[in-house]
Amino acid sequence: MTEERRTDENVIYVGKKPPMIYVLAAVTRFNINGSDEVVIKARGRAISTAVDTAEIVRNRFVTDIEVKEIKMGTESLTNEEGRTVNVSIIEICLAKKKGE
Amino acid sequence: MTEERRTDENVIYVGKKPPMIYVLAAVTRFNINGSDEVVIKARGRAISTAVDTAEIVRNRFVTDIEVKEIKMGTESLTNEEGRTVNVSIIEICLAKKKGE
Repeated sequence: MTEERRTDENVIYVGKKPPMIYVLAAVTRFNINGSDEVVIKARGRAISTAVDTAEIVRNRFVTDIEVKEIKMGTESLTNEEGRTVNVSIIEICLAKKKGE
Repeated sequence: MTEERRTDENVIYVGKKPPMIYVLAAVTRFNINGSDEVVIKARGRAISTAVDTAEIVRNRFVTDIEVKEIKMGTESLTNEEGRTVNVSIIEICLAKKKGE
């Protein structure tokens, strides 16, 4: 078994594109690159798309994975007017099931 | 300590209203009704608002709670045309910290 890594290559940043774009990226990490773990990150409105992505990957494409962890948080950003805005973030860690 | 209950009165369904509406509902459950646990549920686009709600409650209003569990899932709905559509759901369980 390889060591647990959470390098950038296993992280998918979900934005405003349709979920299938990110689904394809995640499936590639698992099936082509052989990753044991993929982390899907998003903030603000993209959080819904991140959950859609994880659910589609898990239910339709890579069935030997499980949701290892879901984390929520808040980030402070400074907008164009110089005001600080808080934005929610989510990190969904999908990992190959142990012993398979 | 009261028994662990997850009755409907401790569940907040997040929809299309602004997050502060749901924040107020959650804060009321904890501070007025004395609930030890509040579950925030949402589906589809409202998932982002559910995460915002949980983060605002936790960071600004009820600081002696923690995120006990976050669950994701998929529900099948039938739309007006009779087609089955899958929609993602989230459940965020906020609970009073033990020993406080």
